[in-house]
Amino acid sequence: MSEDKISMNHGAGGEVMANLIASTILDNITKKSVNGGISLDALDDGASIPIGEDYELVLTTDGHTIDPLFFPGGDIGRISAAGTINDVSVMGARPLAISNAIIMQEGFPIEDLDRIIKSLNEACEEVDVAVITGDTKVMPQDKLEGIVMVTTGLGIAKKGEVVRDSTLEVGDKIIVTGSLGDHGMSLMSFREGFGFETDLKSDVAPMWNIIKKALEIGGVTAMKDPTRGGFANAINEMASKSGVGVVLEQEAIPIKEEVHAVSEMLGIDPFEVANEGKVVMGVKADKAEAILEAIKNEKYGENAAIIGEVVEGDYVVVNTPIGGERILEAPIADPVPRVC
Amino acid sequence: MSEDKISMNHGAGGEVMANLIASTILDNITKKSVNGGISLDALDDGASIPIGEDYELVLTTDGHTIDPLFFPGGDIGRISAAGTINDVSVMGARPLAISNAIIMQEGFPIEDLDRIIKSLNEACEEVDVAVITGDTKVMPQDKLEGIVMVTTGLGIAKKGEVVRDSTLEVGDKIIVTGSLGDHGMSLMSFREGFGFETDLKSDVAPMWNIIKKALEIGGVTAMKDPTRGGFANAINEMASKSGVGVVLEQEAIPIKEEVHAVSEMLGIDPFEVANEGKVVMGVKADKAEAILEAIKNEKYGENAAIIGEVVEGDYVVVNTPIGGERILEAPIADPVPRVC
Repeated sequence: MSEDKISMNHGAGGEVMANLIASTILDNITKKSVNGGISLDALDDGASIPIGEDYELVLTTDGHTIDPLFFPGGDIGRISAAGTINDVSVMGARPLAISNAIIMQEGFPIEDLDRIIKSLNEACEEVDVAVITGDTKVMPQDKLEGIVMVTTGLGIAKKGEVVRDSTLEVGDKIIVTGSLGDHGMSLMSFREGFGFETDLKSDVAPMWNIIKKALEIGGVTAMKDPTRGGFANAINEMASKSGVGVVLEQEAIPIKEEVHAVSEMLGIDPFEVANEGKVVMGVKADKAEAILEAIKNEKYGENAAIIGEVVEGDYVVVNTPIGGERILEAPIADPVPRVC
Repeated sequence: MSEDKISMNHGAGGEVMANLIASTILDNITKKSVNGGISLDALDDGASIPIGEDYELVLTTDGHTIDPLFFPGGDIGRISAAGTINDVSVMGARPLAISNAIIMQEGFPIEDLDRIIKSLNEACEEVDVAVITGDTKVMPQDKLEGIVMVTTGLGIAKKGEVVRDSTLEVGDKIIVTGSLGDHGMSLMSFREGFGFETDLKSDVAPMWNIIKKALEIGGVTAMKDPTRGGFANAINEMASKSGVGVVLEQEAIPIKEEVHAVSEMLGIDPFEVANEGKVVMGVKADKAEAILEAIKNEKYGENAAIIGEVVEGDYVVVNTPIGGERILEAPIADPVPRVC
């Protein structure tokens, strides 16, 4: 792997990717924000643009290169819609609309395209989001295998109510809206051929209805969706950008039995794989119980839990059930299954 | 070519593509507009969302799959920025910001990525557009060759001032902002190895400064940028969506000598290939001269011309210099060079 070529790790959401983005993207762009809104430099889930006196728009984009295209619990259509809706939602903005660019190979089955678009639509319907514009390109089959979709989301918040991933405050409680690792672990077990032995499914889902309830209660200080790099990446990014530490109670963190089982089979940490229907929230301590209750009453929220709190410090620490503690670090690269 | 597989023509911008989009995209999406704005169904260059009392947002997206990545006059970076900026601009909206999703193969040269992003930035700088958010994905080299970029543009207009491609009115004059066919013909001659014999370059450029001048004068009734399918596709789409005919004077339509020459070598109609730095406008007859004058004084506008007018009818007709007339039809598929 030469230093001057792109490697798979440059797209893995870790430090290698962050360095590439800093040197080839951020350094080359002159204008990175509009009207004092959230800038490209923030590398948040999206950016924002204040409009007029009352509103702040949120714009976010995501390229979807899923393998396989169809998997237990979802497909590239559902993930394209939910992923972008969630990126807008964790910024505290009501998702209004998405655009959808499709790039597919010559020879792609039209039946599969139809199924993918139906699935994308279902996820949008759940949270009343419109698909207002798109683009379709076809590439020769020796240049692209399968289909790639890029969805861009547009949302709106009242001015000053946009939520960042960098604004955790000491004393905040940390909430996760459900069990961690479902998407990544189910996808990997499916790929490795263990799919038939487990009921494990991707959690891919639009999170706006849950987030809306939390925002209505108030006291949400920071949010992020733990996709690439998993929960380990999300919580570390939130902590380091906020200049705080986090202490988590391992026993409080919801992880499904099947995820534990697959995790041991594959030798992969469930904290390091993507979730596609979960939110990590920092909330004011005095609102934590009310927010938790509201989330639990929503679809996709039944396994929500308060899993720790924000402290002064530089690390994310997990207290283990037997009284020990370990530092939870952000993964450097995508996990690779340790199977023969 | 079986009917149930995607073919290259499904991405070529013609009728085959329109049918695919109608059956697999439009029919499958439930909510296609927000707040009564321009809908996905309109298949305009973008969609719009009215916000508050005063504004209308324009959102547009475009996937760029260029071969080769670098060509005379530009590269995939410049085309990604300009293409999206132009789609927003022809809707009569001031382009504010773009998002940029990059999908590239493992092994892609970082130096090329750097050059591409610098080039994207230059086009944005020309019209003061910000790059506020993005995404980077890497695919294995057996799944993708090269790089694909999807840019989404966000623009803003005063409420009621958005311009459509379907609102030509009988009596309007048709203006093109410069010579037709430069991009497609230069790209094709470069691909066929004739690049060294000609000075022909792509026209790829952001058009906002020109469009802004025309909008300031007033009387612009409809606009479109003649990209995929070329001028022939753009003018036919404008006419048929508006329910009018168009009569053009062939001698008035600006086409460069080199484009004519390459056109004859390759056996391709210059009206059927993409332009990346041109606008087709319908304007009120009494404003046409003033708008033309303003455009000619702007960068990229020196060859602008009034080329015809809108009439009652169903066809786009071209009057030839020898007194004949021919119907200009929209191309059904991408042109293929007739060279051995």
